[in-house]
Amino acid sequence: MRAAVDPGRPLGVFDSGLGGLTVVRAVARDLPDEAMVYFGDTARLPYGNKSAATVTRLSLEAYRFLHHFGIKAFVVACNSASALAMDALRGEAQVPVVGGVVGGARAAAATTRTGRIGVIGTRATVGSRCYERQLGVLDPAYRITTTACPLFVPLVEEGWIDEAVTRAVAERYLAGVRDAGVDTLILGCTHYPLLREVLQEVMGEGVTLIDSGEAMATEVTALLDGRGLRRAPGPPPPRHRFFVSDQADRFEHGAKRFLGDALGGEVRAVDPSDIPWYDRWAPETRGEA
Amino acid sequence: MRAAVDPGRPLGVFDSGLGGLTVVRAVARDLPDEAMVYFGDTARLPYGNKSAATVTRLSLEAYRFLHHFGIKAFVVACNSASALAMDALRGEAQVPVVGGVVGGARAAAATTRTGRIGVIGTRATVGSRCYERQLGVLDPAYRITTTACPLFVPLVEEGWIDEAVTRAVAERYLAGVRDAGVDTLILGCTHYPLLREVLQEVMGEGVTLIDSGEAMATEVTALLDGRGLRRAPGPPPPRHRFFVSDQADRFEHGAKRFLGDALGGEVRAVDPSDIPWYDRWAPETRGEA
Repeated sequence: MRAAVDPGRPLGVFDSGLGGLTVVRAVARDLPDEAMVYFGDTARLPYGNKSAATVTRLSLEAYRFLHHFGIKAFVVACNSASALAMDALRGEAQVPVVGGVVGGARAAAATTRTGRIGVIGTRATVGSRCYERQLGVLDPAYRITTTACPLFVPLVEEGWIDEAVTRAVAERYLAGVRDAGVDTLILGCTHYPLLREVLQEVMGEGVTLIDSGEAMATEVTALLDGRGLRRAPGPPPPRHRFFVSDQADRFEHGAKRFLGDALGGEVRAVDPSDIPWYDRWAPETRGEA
Repeated sequence: MRAAVDPGRPLGVFDSGLGGLTVVRAVARDLPDEAMVYFGDTARLPYGNKSAATVTRLSLEAYRFLHHFGIKAFVVACNSASALAMDALRGEAQVPVVGGVVGGARAAAATTRTGRIGVIGTRATVGSRCYERQLGVLDPAYRITTTACPLFVPLVEEGWIDEAVTRAVAERYLAGVRDAGVDTLILGCTHYPLLREVLQEVMGEGVTLIDSGEAMATEVTALLDGRGLRRAPGPPPPRHRFFVSDQADRFEHGAKRFLGDALGGEVRAVDPSDIPWYDRWAPETRGEA
């Protein structure tokens, strides 16, 4: 049995980089009294092209880091981590773990009328088939079309939000889901809501875009309400803290694009140095040199 | 004084991922008797958007790993690492260190007639101003124009080599160096030679493209000849080994694009797991929880 949790504890929010701030924004809007501790793994992003083993290892490290802050729940903002590391995180975490896939699938199920649902995400997320599984649990009759869109994240990070090139890339990536006649498209990556206008234009007004960050905020609200874990309204107002594994200055600069000016907090860099894997994996000791 | 080095020892070649294989290909062509041990840090790529501190840390780890194989020289194929970590590597390495910047600058100096030189690379490489410094040593009168092209690497990795989108991105990135009237353009990133055709077309036939990988092979040849370190011609033929920190299978698949079919070797994944930075950096112990 778990010990009683203090509702005054912060939420832990984890992402591979900046993108999870779209989740922070949605949670802050729905749950304005909650404090958040954020970890963005900027030294090792992106996760979307990495293997399940590596994404799982990095996600467990992020949990262990945020665990030090006495978090009451662990919010996995990164869809690639939600897709690949959820079982391992649930096995280790001493607090509830909320990912984007369940919420995104539920929101899509509540939206679709035709049962034709599209999913876009990183190569890791799409390759895991996590949305197909989750949607299949809700209704095996759904017809699901998925497409990996690896260039969307670098385009957002380059700031090319409303550009002809971005539109051309979107036209190409989305041709498949559009031709499949979906009426609902899950944006299965925290960066994609920043491309919402272009994506909506390419898909057409008849298609509803599901923001997995918004869906995650709904899931977090349900979790806290279900367990009586909402923090009492201030004063003092909630204090947010942001940690990154590289480039705190660039993070602070880029955060405005994701958070707007409304939400502030202290940004700190952690230092993941002195990693001795190259000594532990010494080829001589295995007779391979 | 350094101990005498056995010329039969392999060269160590390091890159953040696949791109350094363009250097392997050039070295194998110029120095067909040399054996190479390659390390691609696929678990933590790309380096091009990361800080100097992080790129330096990762580069030192790569050196320490390859050092276990008794390498006779350390070839830093990754331009971002050459740009940011060279001093730290030279301080630690017990063997000569060859980077791409010196070779690329020398090749450009030998090529330009007008003294107007362009440089393209990652954000890390361009931000370091390493090519300006190196070219300035050769001739302070050079007029140098630089541009960071962060989308080129993801475009190459997506396999969009000869596409309208890639051409549009190149048109936009290269407008500045083209308008500056350069007659020589340094491709300061190992991925860019794969875009050679598009880049040449956008720049025009009058501009000479300098492949930093080719330039690096020239530097390695000069180094080995200068120190009498060339391996004697076989038999046996040289044995190449390739190590990556993630996704050995995907590396093997992608390697063909960079190496062609001519060059083979064993590919192995190393496992950089159990990294306890989250425990060493425990906020409670610093009174911050």
